[in-house]
Amino acid sequence: MEATPKINGGVKYNSRTPAIHGPTNPMVTPLLTDLYQFTMAYAYWKADKHNDHAVNPFGGEYTVFAGLEECIRFIANFKLSKDEIAFVRECLSPTCEDGFYDYLGGIDCSDVEVYAIAEGSVVFPKVPLMRIEGPVAVVQLLETPFVNLINFASLVTTNAARHRFVAGKNKLLLEFGLRRAQGPDGGVGASKYCYMGGFDATSNCAAGKLFGIPLHGTHSHAFVSSFTGPDEITEKSLQSHDGSRLCTDFVHLTQMWLGKLKRLSSSEGVFGETNQSELAAFVSYALAFPNNFLALVDTYDVMRSGVPNFCAVGLALSDMGYKAKGIRLDSGDLAYLSCEARKFFQTIEKEFQVPGFGKTGITASNDLNEETLDALNKQGHEVDSFGIGTNLVTCFSQPALGCVFKLVEINNQPRIKLSEDVSKVSIPCKKRSFRLYGKEGYALVDIMLGENEPPPKEGQRILCRHPFNETKRAYVVPQRVEDLMRCYWPGNADKAREELPTLKHIREHCMKQLEQMRTDHMRRLNPTPYKVSVSAKLYEFIHFLWLNEAPVGELQ
Amino acid sequence: MEATPKINGGVKYNSRTPAIHGPTNPMVTPLLTDLYQFTMAYAYWKADKHNDHAVNPFGGEYTVFAGLEECIRFIANFKLSKDEIAFVRECLSPTCEDGFYDYLGGIDCSDVEVYAIAEGSVVFPKVPLMRIEGPVAVVQLLETPFVNLINFASLVTTNAARHRFVAGKNKLLLEFGLRRAQGPDGGVGASKYCYMGGFDATSNCAAGKLFGIPLHGTHSHAFVSSFTGPDEITEKSLQSHDGSRLCTDFVHLTQMWLGKLKRLSSSEGVFGETNQSELAAFVSYALAFPNNFLALVDTYDVMRSGVPNFCAVGLALSDMGYKAKGIRLDSGDLAYLSCEARKFFQTIEKEFQVPGFGKTGITASNDLNEETLDALNKQGHEVDSFGIGTNLVTCFSQPALGCVFKLVEINNQPRIKLSEDVSKVSIPCKKRSFRLYGKEGYALVDIMLGENEPPPKEGQRILCRHPFNETKRAYVVPQRVEDLMRCYWPGNADKAREELPTLKHIREHCMKQLEQMRTDHMRRLNPTPYKVSVSAKLYEFIHFLWLNEAPVGELQ
Repeated sequence: MEATPKINGGVKYNSRTPAIHGPTNPMVTPLLTDLYQFTMAYAYWKADKHNDHAVNPFGGEYTVFAGLEECIRFIANFKLSKDEIAFVRECLSPTCEDGFYDYLGGIDCSDVEVYAIAEGSVVFPKVPLMRIEGPVAVVQLLETPFVNLINFASLVTTNAARHRFVAGKNKLLLEFGLRRAQGPDGGVGASKYCYMGGFDATSNCAAGKLFGIPLHGTHSHAFVSSFTGPDEITEKSLQSHDGSRLCTDFVHLTQMWLGKLKRLSSSEGVFGETNQSELAAFVSYALAFPNNFLALVDTYDVMRSGVPNFCAVGLALSDMGYKAKGIRLDSGDLAYLSCEARKFFQTIEKEFQVPGFGKTGITASNDLNEETLDALNKQGHEVDSFGIGTNLVTCFSQPALGCVFKLVEINNQPRIKLSEDVSKVSIPCKKRSFRLYGKEGYALVDIMLGENEPPPKEGQRILCRHPFNETKRAYVVPQRVEDLMRCYWPGNADKAREELPTLKHIREHCMKQLEQMRTDHMRRLNPTPYKVSVSAKLYEFIHFLWLNEAPVGELQ
Repeated sequence: MEATPKINGGVKYNSRTPAIHGPTNPMVTPLLTDLYQFTMAYAYWKADKHNDHAVNPFGGEYTVFAGLEECIRFIANFKLSKDEIAFVRECLSPTCEDGFYDYLGGIDCSDVEVYAIAEGSVVFPKVPLMRIEGPVAVVQLLETPFVNLINFASLVTTNAARHRFVAGKNKLLLEFGLRRAQGPDGGVGASKYCYMGGFDATSNCAAGKLFGIPLHGTHSHAFVSSFTGPDEITEKSLQSHDGSRLCTDFVHLTQMWLGKLKRLSSSEGVFGETNQSELAAFVSYALAFPNNFLALVDTYDVMRSGVPNFCAVGLALSDMGYKAKGIRLDSGDLAYLSCEARKFFQTIEKEFQVPGFGKTGITASNDLNEETLDALNKQGHEVDSFGIGTNLVTCFSQPALGCVFKLVEINNQPRIKLSEDVSKVSIPCKKRSFRLYGKEGYALVDIMLGENEPPPKEGQRILCRHPFNETKRAYVVPQRVEDLMRCYWPGNADKAREELPTLKHIREHCMKQLEQMRTDHMRRLNPTPYKVSVSAKLYEFIHFLWLNEAPVGELQ
């Protein structure tokens, strides 16, 4: 892992002084938005309302928050080109006035302020992820790109973190999703956010280069079936690892080991003749990568051909001072096959006295997801690392996140969105959010307060109320208080700007956040709901607005 | 719609002589691939097998084939930069020989040939979508990016076509998915492929600019809730459509109409007081876009506030010579509300003699998908156009397509992939594919033949066999024969290159293809399976290879 990762466009930046104004994906321009953002901007401008001060938070579901860096870069680069303005003019009505296009040409995000929870944080419904303040027309133009940048990023990061939770800390998790991802950028983004959410490596070279993510990969079934037999191999020599010896016929050495393996297993009848084209593919791969020999063993028959062929090559490599890395299983009963392969490796270690051979790596990679990982754990398996693709990057179980952008305040007037469905009622006005931690270091509850209320304090009891349910309330004495919102883009305001951390730091933050949550909140099925509360004052205010059941503007 | 659409990167190209070598998305480089493609390339190179001639077709599921243009552009631009080669060197083992990197630096796709079915065609399982021939190491490096580029494109195009099929020909279909799409490029790609699959317009400005797709959009709930009341409106004048008259107080004119509407409906008790901040938002929007007034009517209450407010503004516009476009419903019972709104519009047309008011447009847009469109059709509705987002661009019902890349022949030796699951057995060797049409113009069956067999002919009977089932066979006399595969990239071969059509032409081809399929093959639930067959000769050959149940190489 590089300490100075690179960003889209390949430009290096240093995490401590990020060149936020650098180039981005050329797709990410102010035009990456819905047309109605421009029609509304014109209507605001026409009504001389475009500079009204708007406050919009994102509301989220239980998720790992990601995509913040992309949003800040979007804001930093926000400027409509002449070409883009000409295009907007073509799209809007010919009756729109010229002054609007002059206005569009002049806007940037210097008078916008962005507050957000740190990227990689675990967040819960109702607590705003971001708060954007500024002229209503400009804030409106940020809605679509921000929702786009955050939804997918948070979705994939959350999905990766959930897979990590089920797999456990000690397994190697590999992301293999590029070919099933939603387009090139979807693939590169998925690799980045899977790493953020706790994966160890990716197969995606472009993501490896752009973000410094460790790469992983070996060979495919097509590689195995492209060989016809050992006769194809013309260059058969292999230098030993220490350079002291030369094996002039590595094919012969492998065949010899295969003979010994046959005799070893003949009493148990494990295998007879292995597939010779598979053996040729393995030998070729070992000759190319003697230090990194990892073989896909299920092209023909795992236990009758793939594993014995692998072991023969692995033992021949061992003779030459190399250590085979392992096998990959891509089909069949992964729990059973991994246990059988492990037994065979252990027998070899014992019979032929090859120390460590019993611990040869086993990777599994066939349509895995949270459920199959969970089922493997229950059955018992010997898999060391998991390669996960489709289900990870496309988030099969929930392919879109419901993050939305709400207007909660305009010109200091709070706005509430009423709904018959209580879960859809928005919590009005500017708020501050805190996470309260208990004695064991776990997060107890999140609480939102009005902007001008004094923040919760360590060791001081505070009443936490359910935002909508009169009867649900509890006093909490936090051992630690975390202020969730930080200023990532102060605009013209005289405030310090929070630096954007490196990808590696975000990943570490995410892992730490997950550790600070009680596991019953995080488990896959029927998790205990984590409580999100409001202060007594904010509770009263919400219900004052709500009971009057009318547009808030009229109550002020 | 432009006749010369633009491509990723904003460079114009003419459809008849496409500048295939132009710039692309910077993410789409030869590094957009899995690491194992490079490790295998090295192993092939090391075994001096990298120039073996490989043939790989894609196998698809029932789908509309899309993404071909992106693949051809990828091939045309395929060249590893020095920087990229240096990165590959870092990723592979230090024991890899220097000669390999010289080899990598020299490769391009000049000795690769690509044959494909036309983009926008309806295709069925087992019939290859593309056939790629060339040096095995190079073909391997194309696998991941091609699968990536085709899977998402075909998935979204197919999904759009399915929505079009359910909605029917006469409805306007609008794609509103950008904010829920999988990243920026996922959003822009989704807009392109939804248009290809039969949508009429998008809300995505970037896609509109890049591809010349018609744009559509009005305003959001936030726009409505950002207004507090009509007092906010300071500039109240509106010139009449023909420029002959000036209304100095359009707010007053609207209020007057609202009074008349109340009296009209009071007998039926439809509504009392409408929401005044909503009215202010509508008036502002109408003043900004008098020719394009379309209002979102469900922020407060559709029939008690939104629709009457819309009608008041619409009638005031009508007084000034303008015609209101319509309403958008984004929640509630869309079938019921659209019928109620239609009745109200018709009553107004009759009572106030406003010709055409009864036909005012109704757009619906709340979490729509194939099932909800189908349910609306069954209930009966008055919706003219549908705005569809999340379910369309993320393909909720099936977020990834199973297209795969298979090796079917190497150095003229056929390769078969055996499997206990018959549907996974690959059909070996180079093939030609034809679609046979019947008297009514509908497609009857697809048939694959060996490369050197004579093609089917119009009016001549041909035996079509199920590829794996001995008993399923039928003679067909085609009225028309379509050769499905065309050469889109001849490499160095002396063959004509099929031109890449414009997006608009691909869309037309897709619509025509869908019309040529019998509707029972296309229906949403329990479609009649479309038959894919092989010639008698190819059937014999497959089963000769299969019965021997061994790697094919050994049989030759």
